[in-house]
Amino acid sequence: MDPEEFRRCGTDMVNYITDYMDTIRSRLPFPDVQPGFLREQIPDEAPFHGESWENVKNDLERVVMKGLNQWRSPHFHAFLPIASSFPALLGDMLAGAMISSPGTWTSNPVGTELEVSMMDWLAKMLQLPQQFLFSGGKGGGCIQASADDATFVAIISARAKVIKQFKDKTKGQVLDKLIAYTSEEAHSSVEKAAHLALVEIRCLETDDKFALRGTTLAAAIREDRKKGLIPFFVCATVGTTSTCAIDNISEIGPICEEEDLWLHIDAVYAGCACICPEYRPWINGVEYSTTFSINPHKWLHINPPCSAFWVKDQELINEPLSVDAMYLRVRSASNGVTMPDFRNWHVQLTRPFGALKMWFVFRMFGVHGLQERIRKDMAMAKEFEALVLADSRFEIVADVVSGLVCFRLKGDNAQNEKLLSMIDKSRRICITPSISRGIFYLRFCISVYTTESRDVVFAWEVIQHEADALLSS
Amino acid sequence: MDPEEFRRCGTDMVNYITDYMDTIRSRLPFPDVQPGFLREQIPDEAPFHGESWENVKNDLERVVMKGLNQWRSPHFHAFLPIASSFPALLGDMLAGAMISSPGTWTSNPVGTELEVSMMDWLAKMLQLPQQFLFSGGKGGGCIQASADDATFVAIISARAKVIKQFKDKTKGQVLDKLIAYTSEEAHSSVEKAAHLALVEIRCLETDDKFALRGTTLAAAIREDRKKGLIPFFVCATVGTTSTCAIDNISEIGPICEEEDLWLHIDAVYAGCACICPEYRPWINGVEYSTTFSINPHKWLHINPPCSAFWVKDQELINEPLSVDAMYLRVRSASNGVTMPDFRNWHVQLTRPFGALKMWFVFRMFGVHGLQERIRKDMAMAKEFEALVLADSRFEIVADVVSGLVCFRLKGDNAQNEKLLSMIDKSRRICITPSISRGIFYLRFCISVYTTESRDVVFAWEVIQHEADALLSS
Repeated sequence: MDPEEFRRCGTDMVNYITDYMDTIRSRLPFPDVQPGFLREQIPDEAPFHGESWENVKNDLERVVMKGLNQWRSPHFHAFLPIASSFPALLGDMLAGAMISSPGTWTSNPVGTELEVSMMDWLAKMLQLPQQFLFSGGKGGGCIQASADDATFVAIISARAKVIKQFKDKTKGQVLDKLIAYTSEEAHSSVEKAAHLALVEIRCLETDDKFALRGTTLAAAIREDRKKGLIPFFVCATVGTTSTCAIDNISEIGPICEEEDLWLHIDAVYAGCACICPEYRPWINGVEYSTTFSINPHKWLHINPPCSAFWVKDQELINEPLSVDAMYLRVRSASNGVTMPDFRNWHVQLTRPFGALKMWFVFRMFGVHGLQERIRKDMAMAKEFEALVLADSRFEIVADVVSGLVCFRLKGDNAQNEKLLSMIDKSRRICITPSISRGIFYLRFCISVYTTESRDVVFAWEVIQHEADALLSS
Repeated sequence: MDPEEFRRCGTDMVNYITDYMDTIRSRLPFPDVQPGFLREQIPDEAPFHGESWENVKNDLERVVMKGLNQWRSPHFHAFLPIASSFPALLGDMLAGAMISSPGTWTSNPVGTELEVSMMDWLAKMLQLPQQFLFSGGKGGGCIQASADDATFVAIISARAKVIKQFKDKTKGQVLDKLIAYTSEEAHSSVEKAAHLALVEIRCLETDDKFALRGTTLAAAIREDRKKGLIPFFVCATVGTTSTCAIDNISEIGPICEEEDLWLHIDAVYAGCACICPEYRPWINGVEYSTTFSINPHKWLHINPPCSAFWVKDQELINEPLSVDAMYLRVRSASNGVTMPDFRNWHVQLTRPFGALKMWFVFRMFGVHGLQERIRKDMAMAKEFEALVLADSRFEIVADVVSGLVCFRLKGDNAQNEKLLSMIDKSRRICITPSISRGIFYLRFCISVYTTESRDVVFAWEVIQHEADALLSS
């Protein structure tokens, strides 16, 4: 395909995407397919000779759309959001055409420096302490491939720091005694990061709002020190996946400082809302953290992957993540200014020019535009909560503080599981469940910008309709 | 931005990309900027109110192009290739509009199943043993976020397996004795993966072709067992980054089997060429490996990230990488067919719908089209080699078996470093150096499909011109 042919096919694709988004309301929010459905639909090996673009295009509806969860549908309320916006897509189109990896400054100078600037822009939007800014001192931020990567980088860097402190012991001897903490409501990726780092992790009890409190953490640390263990790492969550609970950072932070533990704050979803002054208090105490992470690809309209990750002192993560190879060595990075080589900030060497889409989105939305979107989602969640509260058969499971509403029938788990299964079968909306302290409930999330007030009402009508059928049967 | 506005802006971007690729020859292959250049060019915080698309578009040349390494330029011969093609870009455009993450089957059924099919298609193109195919038994493949991730997943899975074997010891006691092997010419990511996994790694000597041989590995294992260490993992390279050396898999494989070591084959670049029958012998012995990886984003015209990774037995990697969370549990994956939940194959939960661009590329190029591209690159490398050999001032450093030519002036390292610096200053071509056994040399790689025979001649003229100046000064 030469450039002129791309002009034609690319325009085709822009039109297909436009039409797709124009008609998104008419598509099933999740597909009616069973595992294995695809094998009958496509050949079992690649063609030897190339096919035309028209052939491929003709298969999009038959193959792709038929089996797709429509995360862009206004009726998709599952999980937590994954963002996508047209400005971000434009940025990714250009990045995909240029493919210039900012693994080192020399391999893509503008990719590196735009990432430096965008991480500082976003840090300012969040009112992060100066230490987290490139322009503020020893800290800075980068785009990680995922929040899982962010947590993993935090924990292995904390591990490196503590192993260094025990010079008289082997790494294995230290490792056998290390203990990390998070809450029982934390995301599965925290436990996964600990597994990968080969360290034990305790998932601590939360309060009646599903939040981790300082007293609980302090007691666990005391208990473990008595056992001869070495507490070294805490992952606090601002906005848990199940209920959007906010751990109490103001209590947890000072304890981490006093006990010399590395505090990582996982604020992937709710942290995005902290660009609004009224929600910023959620991360009060962030100055006690060593590393901090939000996912702009959740609620700031930037396509994934875009996990923003900051550290107070670059050296703390660069040292455990650096390897030197001649073919990577810097050629020209010197005239008094030092720019980061982002390969030393994470696992990957080749990495996308991800700052481009951030730049597009921050400029085309503006801070105000992003704030308004968040406020609109919050308001719609409140609308949904009011609808639930007005129906005495239902109850709200957790405070509604974000775009997420957790609710259930005032009945047993089996009844709620049955209700979910009936809603699923209707295929009119897509929601997902969770379970906390043995209680099974349904989660309704404002997941996508296509959702409007009328869709909230529609979703509630679907749920009520299925509840009517269930309770009268 | 509503869909209709995207129709306009998206078409704008398609035109910009087309014009960019149409004029790529006229752009400097790498930019004339110094670290810190960007700070003067853009504001130091995000705008409060949104800007127009036209504003952003007007900054593309001034800001982005000014500081970009032009990896798409026919005169870019640095590192190893990172692929980009129009068919892949079309796939990424659509994936970016839909944003549907195949972290689990239920979160994106077609994304999951198309990945299953594409990994099988590619395995067949490479003539991998049946065990690596989903349709062949217990194995299968997935897209990793990078080759670094692939190696990391391999080593931590091998680590989990061996820790399980020593049930009478703590994990720390086992860890302190674990030893992994690779060659001194292996990619830096192998050493990095070992660091992250907290295991020791020995970088073994290579033969006169920079390849790891069986006898060297066997001797190291014997030596380490005598010391009481526990050998557990070998990473062999098919196509090293410095010289594209091919480790001898046929020798290494049987040793790994006999000694019960996990063999991972890192074939990121040269492995792509194994879709051509004439290069397939490079991976003879692959049946001895437990995990195997190539980067289609290097030489199969698929935009990054696309690191293909296969394992003989899914359980070997799923067990150490699985965590269970209610909000991730499978709802409907059951009617006799089991499809993978790819979140259990790697670090990331949210992951791109990467199979789409593979499907586009495999269909629109066809196997034959991809083979012909590789053969063309090989032929151009041979042309360049002939030019070097015809100039008695130069020597070839390693056998030219791929698109990479390693060469140097028959002089000392300082002279070659000086030559590189002069070539850099000319800014007419971009090449990068490496060093093996203390010898500094220059690397010329056919990196991008825009490069033609005349560009090879041009590059050699630039190099000769600078060499003339250097040697006459």
